[in-house]
Amino acid sequence: VQETIVAERVVFQGRSLRVLERDIQLSESKTVTWEVLAKGDSVAIVALDDDNFVWLVEEYFGAINERSLCLPKGRVDNGELPAAAAARELREEIGMGGELEHLITMSVSPGYLTQRTEVFLATGLHPDPLPGDEAHHLEIVRIPLSQAIEMCGQGAITEARTIAAIMFAGRKLGC
Amino acid sequence: VQETIVAERVVFQGRSLRVLERDIQLSESKTVTWEVLAKGDSVAIVALDDDNFVWLVEEYFGAINERSLCLPKGRVDNGELPAAAAARELREEIGMGGELEHLITMSVSPGYLTQRTEVFLATGLHPDPLPGDEAHHLEIVRIPLSQAIEMCGQGAITEARTIAAIMFAGRKLGC
Repeated sequence: VQETIVAERVVFQGRSLRVLERDIQLSESKTVTWEVLAKGDSVAIVALDDDNFVWLVEEYFGAINERSLCLPKGRVDNGELPAAAAARELREEIGMGGELEHLITMSVSPGYLTQRTEVFLATGLHPDPLPGDEAHHLEIVRIPLSQAIEMCGQGAITEARTIAAIMFAGRKLGC
Repeated sequence: VQETIVAERVVFQGRSLRVLERDIQLSESKTVTWEVLAKGDSVAIVALDDDNFVWLVEEYFGAINERSLCLPKGRVDNGELPAAAAARELREEIGMGGELEHLITMSVSPGYLTQRTEVFLATGLHPDPLPGDEAHHLEIVRIPLSQAIEMCGQGAITEARTIAAIMFAGRKLGC
């Protein structure tokens, strides 16, 4: 038997978060009601320059209440293709254009977050800024890829998608 | 200036999800209100047997509406230490005991999810089952670590923490 969503209701709509209640048929005899957070898809970019430095962004995150070093990332706007969103976020967050290659698709928290993140590798970086929409200060940090990989093991890079993408890019590129 | 949470209110309390509204002072002149999903911390385990096979769990996830191959994982109960939660989840989800070593601490979605995940490496696996509390069927899948790493690049393993932990364990163990 394949699991099936048989009904879905919005139970909370806030400023930016929406919670759905889903009735899910798990088997012929069992239906459960689970809550999920409905979030649109996002993109993240491993931006690697010609010196094999990766460009990360340090910013404050309100849920963990601390600053964190992450890949440039952002939402896919309505009707936008993931590759276009990645190109836009790259320009907005680190002021760079580049050639994009799709690396990997990730789920973030598949039990209660609908969001998926498409991760791209950007190479051939060149200045091409676009004003961003961030409410707060972003600090751009440029680190050798090999050092970024070490930082994942030292607690200096903690966001799961950033760790996954950096480790994955490092392996792909033989770092 | 360091960012500071100046006020916090529960704006939604559902069956399993709770949304908070936080007033956050970003600078002397700027305060914003952001919503975050309050979720307790969790653990995940890279369970590696003596043949260098990693034990994963395939289950259905309601938010992405598909089955996904993930590390054994679960919540840290109130008052429980992360290592104790990891030992319990290992027994509940794959029926194994083992020696646990803390590998890495991850945030999942730091902008709107409070949860952190403590990832442990379990070795010396031996049967020691404990009845679990899952509403649905878990399928245990045992895969050579080197093959699991390949699967991360092939779209067969997609959850960010699972990819990050597998790549990280592979690098640590020279796979």
